[in-house]
Amino acid sequence: MSAIAGLLNPRSVAIIGASADLSKMTGRPVGYLQKYGFSGEIWPVNPRAETIAGLRCYPDIASLPGAPDAAIVLLGPDRAEAAVRDLARKGCLAAVVLASGYGEANEDGARRQAALKEAAASMRLLGPNTIGLVNLTDQMMLSATGALEVGDLPAGRISVVSQSGGILGSLLSRAADRGIGFAKLVSTGNEADLDSSDLIEHLVEDEATDVIAVYLEGLRRPEVFKRAARRAAELGKPVVVYKVGRSDSGARAATSHTGALAGADRVYDALFRQYGVIRAETFTDLLDIPAALVAGRRTEGDRVAILTSTGGAGTLLADNCGLAGIDVPAPDAATTQRLATLLNEDPAAVGRNPVDVTLAGLRPELFRGAIAALLESPSYDAVVVVIGSSALATPDIVAGAILECQAGSTKPILAYVSPHAPHLVRLLNGKGIPAFATPESCASVLGALRRRTLPPAPAPVAADAALLEGLPAGNLNEAESKAIFARFGVPVAREYATGDAAGAEAAARALGGEVVLKILSRAIAHKSDLGGVKVGLQAGQVPEACATMLERLRAAGAPAPEGFLVQERVRGGVEMILGFHRDPQLGPVILLGSGGVAAEVFQDTALRLLPIARTDAEAMVDELKSAALLRGYRGALPADIPALVEAVMAFAAMAGAAGERLLEAEINPLFVLPEGQGACAADGLVVLR
Amino acid sequence: MSAIAGLLNPRSVAIIGASADLSKMTGRPVGYLQKYGFSGEIWPVNPRAETIAGLRCYPDIASLPGAPDAAIVLLGPDRAEAAVRDLARKGCLAAVVLASGYGEANEDGARRQAALKEAAASMRLLGPNTIGLVNLTDQMMLSATGALEVGDLPAGRISVVSQSGGILGSLLSRAADRGIGFAKLVSTGNEADLDSSDLIEHLVEDEATDVIAVYLEGLRRPEVFKRAARRAAELGKPVVVYKVGRSDSGARAATSHTGALAGADRVYDALFRQYGVIRAETFTDLLDIPAALVAGRRTEGDRVAILTSTGGAGTLLADNCGLAGIDVPAPDAATTQRLATLLNEDPAAVGRNPVDVTLAGLRPELFRGAIAALLESPSYDAVVVVIGSSALATPDIVAGAILECQAGSTKPILAYVSPHAPHLVRLLNGKGIPAFATPESCASVLGALRRRTLPPAPAPVAADAALLEGLPAGNLNEAESKAIFARFGVPVAREYATGDAAGAEAAARALGGEVVLKILSRAIAHKSDLGGVKVGLQAGQVPEACATMLERLRAAGAPAPEGFLVQERVRGGVEMILGFHRDPQLGPVILLGSGGVAAEVFQDTALRLLPIARTDAEAMVDELKSAALLRGYRGALPADIPALVEAVMAFAAMAGAAGERLLEAEINPLFVLPEGQGACAADGLVVLR
Repeated sequence: MSAIAGLLNPRSVAIIGASADLSKMTGRPVGYLQKYGFSGEIWPVNPRAETIAGLRCYPDIASLPGAPDAAIVLLGPDRAEAAVRDLARKGCLAAVVLASGYGEANEDGARRQAALKEAAASMRLLGPNTIGLVNLTDQMMLSATGALEVGDLPAGRISVVSQSGGILGSLLSRAADRGIGFAKLVSTGNEADLDSSDLIEHLVEDEATDVIAVYLEGLRRPEVFKRAARRAAELGKPVVVYKVGRSDSGARAATSHTGALAGADRVYDALFRQYGVIRAETFTDLLDIPAALVAGRRTEGDRVAILTSTGGAGTLLADNCGLAGIDVPAPDAATTQRLATLLNEDPAAVGRNPVDVTLAGLRPELFRGAIAALLESPSYDAVVVVIGSSALATPDIVAGAILECQAGSTKPILAYVSPHAPHLVRLLNGKGIPAFATPESCASVLGALRRRTLPPAPAPVAADAALLEGLPAGNLNEAESKAIFARFGVPVAREYATGDAAGAEAAARALGGEVVLKILSRAIAHKSDLGGVKVGLQAGQVPEACATMLERLRAAGAPAPEGFLVQERVRGGVEMILGFHRDPQLGPVILLGSGGVAAEVFQDTALRLLPIARTDAEAMVDELKSAALLRGYRGALPADIPALVEAVMAFAAMAGAAGERLLEAEINPLFVLPEGQGACAADGLVVLR
Repeated sequence: MSAIAGLLNPRSVAIIGASADLSKMTGRPVGYLQKYGFSGEIWPVNPRAETIAGLRCYPDIASLPGAPDAAIVLLGPDRAEAAVRDLARKGCLAAVVLASGYGEANEDGARRQAALKEAAASMRLLGPNTIGLVNLTDQMMLSATGALEVGDLPAGRISVVSQSGGILGSLLSRAADRGIGFAKLVSTGNEADLDSSDLIEHLVEDEATDVIAVYLEGLRRPEVFKRAARRAAELGKPVVVYKVGRSDSGARAATSHTGALAGADRVYDALFRQYGVIRAETFTDLLDIPAALVAGRRTEGDRVAILTSTGGAGTLLADNCGLAGIDVPAPDAATTQRLATLLNEDPAAVGRNPVDVTLAGLRPELFRGAIAALLESPSYDAVVVVIGSSALATPDIVAGAILECQAGSTKPILAYVSPHAPHLVRLLNGKGIPAFATPESCASVLGALRRRTLPPAPAPVAADAALLEGLPAGNLNEAESKAIFARFGVPVAREYATGDAAGAEAAARALGGEVVLKILSRAIAHKSDLGGVKVGLQAGQVPEACATMLERLRAAGAPAPEGFLVQERVRGGVEMILGFHRDPQLGPVILLGSGGVAAEVFQDTALRLLPIARTDAEAMVDELKSAALLRGYRGALPADIPALVEAVMAFAAMAGAAGERLLEAEINPLFVLPEGQGACAADGLVVLR
């Protein structure tokens, strides 16, 4: 048995510091185990009690009758370390430490946390600063949280991993109200040892778990998370993550809460997208999306039919669907005719979406008929039934009709409950019909239900130590930088690096026509600020321009350049930026953005973690607002998008081969020329360490 | 007594088509009036009953003992018209017609609706296709909605106007669950006569109403809405609107639901902004924002302190606040010291925001002390207290502490309830502490609480019939268009319009340097597509360029131009677009946007309804993402923003003076030159009718 399996489903548990007073916080764990009917052995440890709740109580860990599979330590930070050491010696597989005042508190706490981890030796630790775990599949919990007082928590097939205990408690009570059941819930707290990624990886393989919901402040080991997410995708088990740190305030709060390291939130977005993880945008969605996914049905497209008996709520829902990118198309002619016949209505009145059956009234057979007609229509991928006040009195009619229709179709049916009616939401969720109380949730759920397949993992590019041999740390100059890009197939402008003005002039003649003259310097990152770029020169003008440039550099006190770069003048096409950097938490990132000021001012960029597949590069282009420019804007020629995708792949290959020494790289601008004419890097920078 | 006052608070009501069976839909209105304790006269009308619920029943309207102040018509569309006619004859002030199957259904219905309106003559109508109205201030309701079965609806000082009856019912039940009370609720349905704007205007003056919440599908009479919103701002009564139609699907659904005409949603945004109306972005916010506003407190800034006993929920809230533009700054040194002393903690551990008091525990005196310290800190404009599971058992301690602290401060205190705990939300809302169940609501509420004052109404510009005299309908040419702009002070490029190539050459010499040559044509809107624009010519090159242009036009079969326009070449500065159009529903609109492709591709535009004040023009600039470019991007010189604001005001004055004949106008590009150098319109178009 793995330590995590032992922790989640132990044959024996030791409760260190159990109180005989079950109403006290330290009395709760034994009370909960008994109340929920844990079938294994419970071994309370407390030197001042003989028995607790009818169980034999042990004076210390050494006296336990054997090595417990799992233990929960209810002691304060002053005594937890010794208990953990004793448990490890006893051969316990894994222990939960609830106490706070560790890494999240201050530097003293961080030291205490390191000592705790050391005391655990090869025993696995959950926490500290956790509320523990709840296993509703097997009615086992190692927790003292008041949230379990609720009692009667429905078991289900959603498991939860949360870096916050309070959030786990909040999810428990919110789900119970809505009739949403859980399999396992684990709060990982400070993650001194076991972290969210470990738990996700374990739960992906759990037979009782179909969907995993995660509250995340930051990933400590992204590689484990990626592996788990990929495995989840293989098994068709969705992972839904609500991650805080989308704002600076949130990122700061997360750091002081569990000490999680913050990577850039947009890089997390990229990670989730690449690994098929669904990101919940609101806290409500963190329950609502799993509740819909666990029903097991997926959509094959984004077209939804809304059936309503209350016009306003139907409109509300249609509006929110539209905002979320879900189509709400009118029914096809055959479906319209079928509805008209069924409802005895003018086809003009029913050939709309939402389909409003107010006038027909809530007769079960009409309701059933209308749902069936919409489910069977080739125009729709899913049906949402809006439940208004009129259905409150007879919830079974509505639920019955939906259930009956559901049996005859494989498409998802959801319910939006317009009035406040938690009993109806519970009833429907309990019967496997995902039901929601906000129109926003319905819309985001419809997006999340879309069947998704993860493309095969792109092969990582092996680092090639020879590539950067001999190059210094710091900025490379433009010619050096672009030479590296070019080796991987990034098309670069035709150009000559040369040491002096005469060489520059000769280069200009060789290129012919108007050229671009630039100083070549590792030391000067912003060439144009120092007059180091001149566009549109004829060869004859080059020597004088070289002299002027050198003069300006001298005047500004700048170091002498390595020489000059003479470049063909690239015109036309769409300007893009292609970049590489390292996220402090998540690693190497590639960026594609609109060129010029647009990437920054309009935040028009797409990110991916490396390595990437060609489909990623294509998706990056599609994600940009400026994709409209690439596709040929207002009669302009479409740009050479395949060449852009090639350039992205080549740049990614370069970054992979460069390996750990590569800190940053950028091509700005990358001209994407009209269709068939390729792309061209007109400037470039590489920063090494 | 006005008809609306009579409708909302009648001395006598007639119930046309009342059933003696109070459980039937048509029996409900009499039942509700009795159940809620209506103190006026109730006159049921039904030829087949002698008494209803102990009241004398009248066989027809003519037999009523007097003219009722208000009536509710429970008959179907076939008989409602006659009842309305009889009520009007009897002298009834206003009648509610519940039946549907009118304008929202089809053309027959639209005809029925017109007839109904005609039958009402000078009597006012609410509906048809409405669920009527509820007056909880005076315990009077004219409605048959099942939502009133709930009973025991708390009275409060929020009034609701809804174009959908179902939504009104949904709000009623959702608010009751949350302990949020209402004054009046009116569903306006098809608005054959009284519309949302009428009701808002009435409720603004209602002494029992402090906040007005509106569910809107579209405004029929924006002028009345504007007047009401301005009056509401004067009286300090916030108007909060949830408007659907943000997506095409929603706009379509709204049209078929209540037949409301759709203006562009972004123009509604502009309307709300200009008239101090708060737009609720989610359906939940439509209740949550009024619930917070009705407590009466406002913030003077956007800095919030979060006090929490559960780290995760505090983080969640901080993250959502940051996303919504609310600051979550760390406490100042004095406040940190005060918290450290109070909680007996290291200042490093408490000098954070969220302020986490988990370790200190939920002792009431600490809780009170911490809230007081944050409220009294000059660093914060509001305080949010996060309520975790640990407070569930002792809600009065938390509520008591908050209430006590609230009394000593004028700043808003809100509560975020992390676990599912509707009783706690109800308790807090009932005691005047706005309490919320989602972090997103808390954040949007904090934004809505910001004190706002409406600048004085800008004076409308009187139309000047002489301005467009002699100009034809359709497109004007560039010279004609810019001449109109220039008359109002819009700076335009120096230019000469001329009939032939010789004149063009002379003009180029007069201008000196490089010029821009354009064809001058009313008929050709897209000059460059036909080779009709040439940039950077010397005077000597002009005649040949003119000939080439004419040749290309001939070859393309285009009409002969009026002549040529020779223009100075404007360089540098930031390119903007300034436009005017008429929204079909809301009227004249002015648009400022990024120039080039950015306005469209990156949707970087700001809209306002005319007339505008200078503050509006300034706010338009600030709203743009490209404001960053205007302010001097990456070391570029800042642009002449005052000149841009002047240009916007001049363009708005032009549009006002042009009056009804002006259909569209556009300056594209408008160059905003470096500071002190002004702005310059380089191209322009006016379209007249």
